[in-house]
Amino acid sequence: MRRSIVDIREGSDFPLENLPYGVVSEGGSRHVVARIGDYFVKMGVLVERLPEVFDSYGFDHVDAGNVFSADSLNRFMDAGVEPRKATRRILTELLAEDGELNQLRNNPELKDEVVKPLDDPSISVQMPAVIGDYTDFYASKYHAENVGIMMRGKDNALMPNWKHLPVGYHGRSSSVVPSGTAVHRPNGQSVPANVDPPVPSFGPCQMLDFELEVACFVGKSSHLGNPITIENADKHIFGIVLMNDWSARDIQKWEYVPLGPFTAKNFATTISPWVMTWEALEPFRVPAEVQDPKPLPYLDGGSVRKTFDVTLDVSIRAPCGESPVRVCRTNYKHLYWTVEQMITHHSVTGCPMRAGDLIASGTVSGPEPESFASMLELAWKGTKPIQLGGENGERKFLHDLDETRACIFCDENVGREAIRALLRTCEPDSCVMVLIELA
Amino acid sequence: MRRSIVDIREGSDFPLENLPYGVVSEGGSRHVVARIGDYFVKMGVLVERLPEVFDSYGFDHVDAGNVFSADSLNRFMDAGVEPRKATRRILTELLAEDGELNQLRNNPELKDEVVKPLDDPSISVQMPAVIGDYTDFYASKYHAENVGIMMRGKDNALMPNWKHLPVGYHGRSSSVVPSGTAVHRPNGQSVPANVDPPVPSFGPCQMLDFELEVACFVGKSSHLGNPITIENADKHIFGIVLMNDWSARDIQKWEYVPLGPFTAKNFATTISPWVMTWEALEPFRVPAEVQDPKPLPYLDGGSVRKTFDVTLDVSIRAPCGESPVRVCRTNYKHLYWTVEQMITHHSVTGCPMRAGDLIASGTVSGPEPESFASMLELAWKGTKPIQLGGENGERKFLHDLDETRACIFCDENVGREAIRALLRTCEPDSCVMVLIELA
Ligand SMILES: [Ca+2]
Ligand SMILES: [Ca+2]
Ligand SMILES: [Mg+2]
Ligand SMILES: [Mg+2]
Ligand code: NI
Repeated sequence: MRRSIVDIREGSDFPLENLPYGVVSEGGSRHVVARIGDYFVKMGVLVERLPEVFDSYGFDHVDAGNVFSADSLNRFMDAGVEPRKATRRILTELLAEDGELNQLRNNPELKDEVVKPLDDPSISVQMPAVIGDYTDFYASKYHAENVGIMMRGKDNALMPNWKHLPVGYHGRSSSVVPSGTAVHRPNGQSVPANVDPPVPSFGPCQMLDFELEVACFVGKSSHLGNPITIENADKHIFGIVLMNDWSARDIQKWEYVPLGPFTAKNFATTISPWVMTWEALEPFRVPAEVQDPKPLPYLDGGSVRKTFDVTLDVSIRAPCGESPVRVCRTNYKHLYWTVEQMITHHSVTGCPMRAGDLIASGTVSGPEPESFASMLELAWKGTKPIQLGGENGERKFLHDLDETRACIFCDENVGREAIRALLRTCEPDSCVMVLIELA
Repeated sequence: MRRSIVDIREGSDFPLENLPYGVVSEGGSRHVVARIGDYFVKMGVLVERLPEVFDSYGFDHVDAGNVFSADSLNRFMDAGVEPRKATRRILTELLAEDGELNQLRNNPELKDEVVKPLDDPSISVQMPAVIGDYTDFYASKYHAENVGIMMRGKDNALMPNWKHLPVGYHGRSSSVVPSGTAVHRPNGQSVPANVDPPVPSFGPCQMLDFELEVACFVGKSSHLGNPITIENADKHIFGIVLMNDWSARDIQKWEYVPLGPFTAKNFATTISPWVMTWEALEPFRVPAEVQDPKPLPYLDGGSVRKTFDVTLDVSIRAPCGESPVRVCRTNYKHLYWTVEQMITHHSVTGCPMRAGDLIASGTVSGPEPESFASMLELAWKGTKPIQLGGENGERKFLHDLDETRACIFCDENVGREAIRALLRTCEPDSCVMVLIELA
């Protein structure tokens, strides 16, 4: 690891190799920033002060100024791959102790103007982008099979279409919120088990679940009537965030036939606010598992499909608990469909993809029971409650006041490029608190 | 009908009683306008020139200026009911021959500055609002039953949940386009009938359908965690447009299990660009049919549910045809669920509704076969082709080059308050053209 001119504490999730982007609010106005350690880099100020650096790295300073003076990442996302790569090179060389750019290293005043501490009380972290549309896929075969077995039995677990196309549905973008936003436990209709004919009752969700997902922000926009080919799909990807697709299982069960989940999912979807770029993830690329049957040509790039080897985990801390108990440990590479395939399938009809659209993976369950990425699967529909140990008791679904924490680790040994999201539920009938662990 | 100082030709769909709002582009910049006859009223200029009129009608001219200087209707929508009612009163009194406001009547120069002809070649009609989220409901019992009978037989036609909640799903907002936008016939996966086990093939949709719907624009926004009660729902409604929910039936059939329609619907959804307000529709209010069983209290306002008595129809003109042949004639009052119930159910979880969100009714089929509002139902899954007469031949689904025209009539006799949308399909494998008849 290269050392930085910014003081990064040992074990930080935000070393020089990560450099995710986000948006902070400072005294009411929003700024596009990059994160390093417990600091953020004000990108707009950086371009203003060092336009020649942007020019010399191939990102015209006028374009860069336009992109970074915005109050969300959407314009930067829409700028595409090359400006993003140039920006990463600039930041790396400016912030590394041995970087080839010395403008910040040799100018402490400029450095203090551009690089600011996140723990300033006037700073708050915001949604990174305006999400035009949010789509949730269902790309883990293990998750689809688990849910299928619980709903329809082992023989019909996987629907006939599942291996031929990445199944997905349109989600609600108005309720996608950054980690830290308070979320209410939803009310809704559900039918108690074994009531036949079914008569619904109304009240707070009794089966509140998390779904650990990884969501991709679309980069460059496409246009109506212009499908994105599988070969070009990666040019339309900006980066990823962790996502919790909060799910009300009792509401979902009653409402989802025949048009899919609706109010069971629309009350909130939480994302981590720091977007890891495709470039930061590059060192963790591995081949994806072979698909059998081979998908139709439009979904098959011909060359080896690639995914990422990154560990994901979820811990729960009970209200009385001292430390979080890990309940799930899985890996992004378990997904059957890649993001490139999702984007290609999504747009094959000519559906436009816009910069800032969010494409979620679906629950990233793996093959082993400990890698199941929702309570529904972990406690197998309530039949195998999760033991949290000691007086923490057991769980079929989330209790109020439980804290749920999700992490992504690209390289556990150095703790590098991790994003931790701390998710917390509270007060009966009231709210679900969601916090990001910024430190 | 009151006569106007603007020259409105006999039979126009845009008399003084209609006054829908929209957005026009004029030399590259967008303006919020009201429509009267074949003219539009530039709302931003109106406030600038006559601020005292807005003040005296209770819409503070600073607020009005802020709302009408925008490049979309979203801010006006978010302003809520009273500013919208005030604006309607102002426009009516300014534009009526006997109106109590004479500022335009007595000042031809000002009138020419504010009221402009739509047939100016530098003018184009745009999307009325930025749609944050688009939701499609399924609120006609006749439509749900028809589809259910075709899919699952008569005994299981209506799902058990259907009468207890307004079934709906999240749609794709990026592909909602105004009438006039060219739309490509989508490619996708489908499985030929009777292939078992199913093996999909890829190609252009062979079962291209329309769904005649009425879509409501959300007015005042609500916030995360704050459900909109049934009593307050109408305060969050701005007005309606006609909608064609283009549907690829062959793609839909293969993909929709278990998460609902996805690419079968995301290639395009066409709306008419002039938004009729709730106030304009008020004279056509009628009680809605009694619901049996009574819905749960949160969906039941206690008082009589109201809907609108407005006629909807669809015509098709074959490429060789001289005049359009009407294939569907239905009425908005046939819907089982009201918009107020849809909004209440949608937000009961705390899901935020934002000004400019689009809430579509679902296919407005009525009880009689001629009132079915999709080709799927009209031609009963291809078993009863529609006869267009003469050399126009018959139709199971839309052919390329067919023109599909949809209308809404509030009062047929005077032709008043109608919006005509002319929808046109063309060239094999290429595109679906959508045109609005502005005259
Ligand atoms: Ca999900
Ligand atoms: Ca529909
Ligand atoms: Mg969700
Ligand atoms: Mg559609
Ligand atoms: Ni310059």
